[in-house]
Parts: sequence; C-alpha cells; structure tokens
Amino acid sequence: MVERDFTVGDVPGVLRSPASGADRAPLVLMGHGGGAHKKHAAMVGRAHLLVTGCGFHVAVIDAPGHGDRPRSAHDEQDIAALRKAQAAGEPEGPIVVPYDARPAELAVPEWQATLDALQELPEIGADGPVGYVGIGLGTAIGMPLVAVEPRITAAVFGMHWPDAMFGAAKQITVPIEFALQWDNERIPREAGLALFDAFASQEKTSHANAGKHFEMPRFEADSAVRFLARHLGRAVPSPA
Amino acid sequence: MVERDFTVGDVPGVLRSPASGADRAPLVLMGHGGGAHKKHAAMVGRAHLLVTGCGFHVAVIDAPGHGDRPRSAHDEQDIAALRKAQAAGEPEGPIVVPYDARPAELAVPEWQATLDALQELPEIGADGPVGYVGIGLGTAIGMPLVAVEPRITAAVFGMHWPDAMFGAAKQITVPIEFALQWDNERIPREAGLALFDAFASQEKTSHANAGKHFEMPRFEADSAVRFLARHLGRAVPSPA
Repeated sequence: MVERDFTVGDVPGVLRSPASGADRAPLVLMGHGGGAHKKHAAMVGRAHLLVTGCGFHVAVIDAPGHGDRPRSAHDEQDIAALRKAQAAGEPEGPIVVPYDARPAELAVPEWQATLDALQELPEIGADGPVGYVGIGLGTAIGMPLVAVEPRITAAVFGMHWPDAMFGAAKQITVPIEFALQWDNERIPREAGLALFDAFASQEKTSHANAGKHFEMPRFEADSAVRFLARHLGRAVPSPA
Repeated sequence: MVERDFTVGDVPGVLRSPASGADRAPLVLMGHGGGAHKKHAAMVGRAHLLVTGCGFHVAVIDAPGHGDRPRSAHDEQDIAALRKAQAAGEPEGPIVVPYDARPAELAVPEWQATLDALQELPEIGADGPVGYVGIGLGTAIGMPLVAVEPRITAAVFGMHWPDAMFGAAKQITVPIEFALQWDNERIPREAGLALFDAFASQEKTSHANAGKHFEMPRFEADSAVRFLARHLGRAVPSPA
C-alpha cells in the first residue's frame, strides 16, 4: 500500500493506493468518525482491506475541526459540552446532532473539490467508479455529499441520529449498506432504523449487530469492502 | 459436487459433498422453505455455494408433508386455507404460524436422527463442526432444533413470524445471522425485528433488505455462506 499526503485548498488528505502501480482503479472516499482523523488506526485498517483486497484507491480528508485542521471556538464549546454530557451519563444526541451538522455543511464542497483533484490523476480518471464509506461523523458528512454528488454510485453509512439527516436520506438513491448497533446506548435502535427507512435507494441493506455503540464487530468492515467491491466492479476479495 | 440420496427412518434426504473426496469437512444442515423440498432449485443453489466454495457437506431432508413425504388431511386443509387467504389478500400469519408449528415439532427428532446417521460417515465424523441454514419453514423447524441440539454451533435464520418462536429464540445462544425483508407484505417488519431481538445469542446480526417477501437479494445467500465459513472454521470463499 502506497500512502500519499495531499492538500486541496487548505484541506489535508491522504490517498492510499496499491503498491503495484498505475492501473486505473475505482476510488473510495472514506469519512472518518467523530474525534478521529485521516490517519486514525480504524481508517488505516479499512483502507488496507480496500487497497490490498480490491486494488482500490482510498482517500480520506480531515473533517473540519479534526486532525491537522484548527478547531473553532464553537468546536471547543461543543466538545466541552459533549464531554460534560458523557461524564454525567446524559444523552449525547442533543449535542452531537447540531455539532455534526456544521462540519457536514462545510465538508460537502471540500469533498467535491477533492474528488475533482483526485480524478485528474491518470490512475483514477474522470469516469471511473467512486464509492463512499463512513460511519458516525463520516455518515453525517457523507449523506449530504452522496445526496448531491452523482459521481458516487454506492455508499456505506451507519451509526448516526436521524434528526438532521432525513432530507439527505430521501435524496439518496444509490445502493447503500447501513450499519447499526442493536444495543446502542447512544443512538436508540429506533432512531437508527428510522434513518435506514428514510433512504430512497432501491437497494438498501441494514446490518444490525448485537452490542453497544463501540462494539461494532470487525466483520462489518469486511462486509463494507465486499459491498463496495460488488458495486464498483471489482472481484470480491477473500479476506484472510 | 456429489449428490447422495439417503433415508433415515422414513425421512428422505440428500447429502451434497465436494467431488474431490473424503477429507473430513464441516456439515451444514439446510432446511427448505414452505412448499419446497430437498431438491428445490434454491436448495441446490445454496448447497452449491457451500460445497464448491467452502468444501462443506450439505444435508437437506424433506420436511413433514413436503417433497416425497405424504401430506396429511390436516396439511391439505391448511394448504387450502392458505391458498384461499392468499387469493383474498388476507393475512397469512394466522394460518402459517400454527401450520408451521406442526412440522417443526415432528422435524426436530428427524433432524437429530439424521445428524446421528451423517456423523457416522468418516468424511463427517462425530466431532466436526455443524451449522444450520434455513429461512421461512426452514426457520420454523431450525429454531427449535438449534435450541435443543448442542452439536449445531452457528445458524442462519429469517423470514418467519415470531409468535410461536419466542421460546426457542430465548434458548438459542450460538452466533446467528437473521434475514428479513424491510417491505415484507406477509411478515410485518416489526414482527421480524421482534424475533431477531428475542435471540439470546451474544453474536447476532440482522440483515434487512429493501423489498418484498420474495425479493430477498441473491447476495444474502453469499453472506450466509461466509457467515457459516467463518464459524465452522473454513477459509471464506471468494464467490465469482
């Protein structure tokens, strides 16, 4: 796997590609989770599955206020409020939902500019297949992106409150796979199912696993890879 | 794939095995759907994935009143009532739930005797891994079987009403994958989710797909194969 740092405007990102060379291959845009960043271990692991298993290119950019990007005073306030709610055992939705709406609004044009730039690379190209994968904050950003970006033809989402997302869900018609945790102590089961229900996609699959918010099983990462491989037109990999 | 017909007591079955020979391999018990039988095309297709993809043995037996087995007067009455309800667009649950309870009760000891007999084959053996897969009637029969049969260590279920199944679900603790159709016109979404919720298994995953009762996508058959391969200890196959 070859890792190349890049910047588009003032947004830092990383492109991971097969070591074997410059054959044209599908591109997966990967949104990281809340509090994580473009080189978080979970992103590296998922990218590795896609790059080495499928021969895909995988791009991650830092979300606004994350990774190498500055936090605003507003970000700092929201994060402090979130830590306080978590310490008190209070619901996080009322803080996370409006918090995530802001980076989502900013990130849509950032992802589109990034996609424009990446498609200029000969090993990606302007007409190759493009997918999206991201859960949590990666879904808060990815859903409005996929809703308006016709170049993205398949997406993996999950693990977010539906409140601010119904509008985007109703605009999304590409195949989706949607992960939720059946015993999620942060996002009620019914909220996750309501968001899944709202997608306009003719092909949509929800994967609900027993366990709490942070207990999503590893095999869902493999499943996301197979879903993207199926839709972006590569042979389904055989993970070890 | 080698196909061998067998009979245990007066129950006819078929065992499908890899052509390549007598190496010991895991066994999957497969329950057919309502109105189908041991050699129905859907069973042959799923068996093919498991035998050629994973090297497993796959056994299917005719459920009571199905395939080569006689129908009772009671069966005939229930089938006539079901056809009438279907023609009138009435709910099928009130007919199918009690109808399926009867073959389920009969089939549990039949499956156990079949498993006893199959484990005497050297290419299966008494201590090898055993899984179960069956939806619809295959779930109505399989759930009470898996609830009482400790030799079965992983199971794929789905597409049944929960009414008569809660007791079995609460006794089942092995990993399960559970399929349901999000727009099922026969089994309400809430009923399918309630049944999934009832399983005592620590590892359980529901796969809900957009579409009606008979529109379950082909990729769920592939998913069931990977689930069984993961739990019965074979390399995950790479389907074409």
